[in-house]
Amino acid sequence: MEQIIEREDYLPGNKRVIRQRSDIFSYSMDAVLLAKFVHVRGAARIADLCAGTGAVPLMMSLRTGAIIEALELQPFLCELFERSIQANELERQISLYEGDLRYMKDFPLGKYDVVTCNPPYFPVTKEKGVNENTSKTMARHEVSCTLEDAVKAAASLVRSKGKAAFVHRPERLADIFQVMKKYRLEPKRIQYVHPKKGKEANIVLIEGVKDGGTGIKTEAPWIVYGDAGEYTPEFYKHYMIGGEKDE
Amino acid sequence: MEQIIEREDYLPGNKRVIRQRSDIFSYSMDAVLLAKFVHVRGAARIADLCAGTGAVPLMMSLRTGAIIEALELQPFLCELFERSIQANELERQISLYEGDLRYMKDFPLGKYDVVTCNPPYFPVTKEKGVNENTSKTMARHEVSCTLEDAVKAAASLVRSKGKAAFVHRPERLADIFQVMKKYRLEPKRIQYVHPKKGKEANIVLIEGVKDGGTGIKTEAPWIVYGDAGEYTPEFYKHYMIGGEKDE
Repeated sequence: MEQIIEREDYLPGNKRVIRQRSDIFSYSMDAVLLAKFVHVRGAARIADLCAGTGAVPLMMSLRTGAIIEALELQPFLCELFERSIQANELERQISLYEGDLRYMKDFPLGKYDVVTCNPPYFPVTKEKGVNENTSKTMARHEVSCTLEDAVKAAASLVRSKGKAAFVHRPERLADIFQVMKKYRLEPKRIQYVHPKKGKEANIVLIEGVKDGGTGIKTEAPWIVYGDAGEYTPEFYKHYMIGGEKDE
Repeated sequence: MEQIIEREDYLPGNKRVIRQRSDIFSYSMDAVLLAKFVHVRGAARIADLCAGTGAVPLMMSLRTGAIIEALELQPFLCELFERSIQANELERQISLYEGDLRYMKDFPLGKYDVVTCNPPYFPVTKEKGVNENTSKTMARHEVSCTLEDAVKAAASLVRSKGKAAFVHRPERLADIFQVMKKYRLEPKRIQYVHPKKGKEANIVLIEGVKDGGTGIKTEAPWIVYGDAGEYTPEFYKHYMIGGEKDE
């Protein structure tokens, strides 16, 4: 049996630590990019759904002084996240709630300026099966939270003209737009991430505005790796450099 | 009063000529890119809607031996296109019909392997007004053909599992996906074009499959111009080099 190791890692490019466990998923580049992509300027109150071990709130706290309230379903992940909040002395800025975004009770509706969400990406299908590890499965597959559940929850929390931002797989973009429009989150800005020049996109970041008008801005893409496997200068700048407050 | 000049221009990177008139819109990069983006391999019968002066069919004929049937509403544009067909001796491959895609009578439904369409991009709004020139106005603004008209017509012509490809502004992507799904054209492949590195996209090419499953491939972006205003090598290859049949 594999030994379970709990460890304290650094988030990229700053002094924030994040507690992780070897048998549970680790934070991904996707979460960090979401925290860097979302517009937080002027926000006073932010919610983060599907928070996991807290990479998005921990990174966002470098960019904003807003109160951040996070929701995570899995107790193990909440424990780790809670200890990360303490380790970074962010108890005054970040509050964590354990719960299911399909039945939210701790979060007031329509009161958030910004909502972020890094939901499970993969539909549960008979053909594909799901990851054996239950914690990973729940974080990665739509077992306890479908795309529509996540978008609906985010849309219910954000105020009119507030922003909701998601990270997902580009394969799902048409489905994402469809459910966003269903819950009055108009897609306004997208950012693609390509692993290398000449390769198709493997991450997409999407920001919508509640009750917004139509019209999407498609940002210049981020290309992660150069030919030698190093971060490209542009990506390095976006990914590794941080810590300045936006406001 | 401006003198009207009819002229014979070359399409980029090959010997195809296209007849244009100085007072009517000229073919755009968008049309050429659509003709290069769409998958035509194995197609026997192709329809092109909103054909204009015929840039898309004239360019596509370099890549496929399929029969191409084109539809254009404006008689002036049809006249020019007809003369381009003759000038290129493409009478056996390309047929042109003058008509309105909202009331098609010359085109059998569900019989085309591929349908292409470069529709008017701009909604008609009170605020923005429309271009004075009627011909330009009809080609650029949704006066006689809305986005939904164009997508509906394309979806009605293409066979089940056949492809429909559009070029449009990235601003409209969520609306495009919405009407495509409404008419059972599942978005399957998108290609962004950025004018320069670091700039947001200003053209998007979208290919859908009638009755297709969900799942979108987002191709590596095309960057048109380098710092000195020259075509980038990658874009030059896509845009200027052609003439080889795909099949």
